[in-house]
Amino acid sequence: MELEFLGTGAGSPARYRNVTSIALKLLDERNAVWLFDVGEGTQQQILRTTIRPRKVEKIFITHLHGDHIFGLPGFLSSRSFQGGDQPLTIYGPKGIRDYVQTSLRVSDTRLTYTLKFVELTENTKVFEDDTFRVDCQTLDHRIASFGYRVVEKDHTGELLVAKLQAAGVKPGPEYGKIKAGQDVTLADGTVVPSSDFIGPAQKGRIVTILGDTRRTANAYTLAADADVLVHESTFGQADGRIAHNYYHSTSTQAAEVAKKAHVKQLLLTHISARYVGKAAHELQSEARQVFPHTRVMKDFDQIPIPLQKN
Amino acid sequence: MELEFLGTGAGSPARYRNVTSIALKLLDERNAVWLFDVGEGTQQQILRTTIRPRKVEKIFITHLHGDHIFGLPGFLSSRSFQGGDQPLTIYGPKGIRDYVQTSLRVSDTRLTYTLKFVELTENTKVFEDDTFRVDCQTLDHRIASFGYRVVEKDHTGELLVAKLQAAGVKPGPEYGKIKAGQDVTLADGTVVPSSDFIGPAQKGRIVTILGDTRRTANAYTLAADADVLVHESTFGQADGRIAHNYYHSTSTQAAEVAKKAHVKQLLLTHISARYVGKAAHELQSEARQVFPHTRVMKDFDQIPIPLQKN
Ligand SMILES: [Zn+2]
Ligand SMILES: [Zn+2]
Repeated sequence: MELEFLGTGAGSPARYRNVTSIALKLLDERNAVWLFDVGEGTQQQILRTTIRPRKVEKIFITHLHGDHIFGLPGFLSSRSFQGGDQPLTIYGPKGIRDYVQTSLRVSDTRLTYTLKFVELTENTKVFEDDTFRVDCQTLDHRIASFGYRVVEKDHTGELLVAKLQAAGVKPGPEYGKIKAGQDVTLADGTVVPSSDFIGPAQKGRIVTILGDTRRTANAYTLAADADVLVHESTFGQADGRIAHNYYHSTSTQAAEVAKKAHVKQLLLTHISARYVGKAAHELQSEARQVFPHTRVMKDFDQIPIPLQKN
Repeated sequence: MELEFLGTGAGSPARYRNVTSIALKLLDERNAVWLFDVGEGTQQQILRTTIRPRKVEKIFITHLHGDHIFGLPGFLSSRSFQGGDQPLTIYGPKGIRDYVQTSLRVSDTRLTYTLKFVELTENTKVFEDDTFRVDCQTLDHRIASFGYRVVEKDHTGELLVAKLQAAGVKPGPEYGKIKAGQDVTLADGTVVPSSDFIGPAQKGRIVTILGDTRRTANAYTLAADADVLVHESTFGQADGRIAHNYYHSTSTQAAEVAKKAHVKQLLLTHISARYVGKAAHELQSEARQVFPHTRVMKDFDQIPIPLQKN
């Protein structure tokens, strides 16, 4: 599990920061990549990475501002052009379907794969299967904006083979039952309780990715105990009033969320083009005063998210 | 007057060729830039040039395929974001208005300038003022596709001041009248015929830019005697049948148009990603067999279009 930042700018593309897109690479976990926002030029950024468009299984859109969605029709077309044939689902605020379908219709684009839409209007469970669950909550932006909380389910503990053998349980179908959580009765009547022969569960990881937002209570809920919180930082500490007026956050406000939510790591993105070089570094320093484990992201930064040791 | 190629690829962006966009820089002529097609990432390409979005006065769309239009909403937003306040007109096939307006509405983008649309359905005069005239004609592509013929009006000849003075006409309001083409009668009754005192007119330039197309008759009409013909060359000579099936042209077909239309220079663009390095050079060699003044364009190539000596 790894995050790769495809665009870390705000508003308009700049020479060294493209507009927003974040890839959550789940190659080991499900041989898939999830994208969060697809600003214009995301497919060009992807050309400079090892990400293969056909592996993109889900796209989560935080909000419909152009710097977060204008790369979507092009990405979808190229995924098709490159022979992608697996279904793809787009989750996002109401309107995303209209935008994408109009773009594909007007341009006479016929996709080689099934495209599904899930439009969001309120706090809800977005997706769940055996290995992941994603929830969204509303944030506070000029238009509807969502934060996503991606929770990996706990990995079941390993089968304690040595211990089983010591207890006289020979390899065979019983091992599968025990691994699946069933108690087993041996030929001699001995009951082998499954729970005694399975190691501790490995805690799943939590990744929280927020859309553009002012300081808001739902951010804390979404970020609670996350391994990684990705938070916008359009402005610096000194521009709190501007941030408020434009429905954005400062570096320090992001750090306060990280601190109160007890996250392990804060990654700042959506950096205004006014902060270049030293000034971007300054955003990081400000945030670290509040929450030390903070980094300002650059385009193409890759952040591994390791499983925590039990 | 100069052409700058912002994207020279076909279909999907590639590492070294972005999708289609061409700038016709008319800085000396009207302090403006015209764009022909705006594929995704055009605004990012513009960041690497000296072109200022606010100077873009007109955008001509050849056809609605995604690789020619998906950069439009982002470009329009950024032009606004950067304080552009002059009106902008988009000319293109029916559907362009729906696409742009849906994109701007869904993304809640409010432009700081007036955006006008002129939708085209048939061969017509697209635009005319004192210095330029633009006509379009339909081409032969899978969807409606247009070629544009940009004709600069002839520059009036200079006032022959020395000759006027020799003829005894003193500087004064008469000079303005003669320059404007009016004959003047002096106090002594002498008639001064305007045409005797104005140098030869300077022929205006002709630039023809075609959208994606199969070989088709209108291409010749549009390109007749042009200073520059910009023609797609999606395929090489050997792939004539594929080109036909996909409604595209080969390098050699483009060269045949250039030759029969007596253009001065042929610029090939919309090069498939399969032709890299030597293979792209091969397209140029093939075309030169038919029409020597041919060049295959690369992204950021700049081609000056000088006035011809009378
Ligand atoms: Zn934004
Ligand atoms: Zn094309």
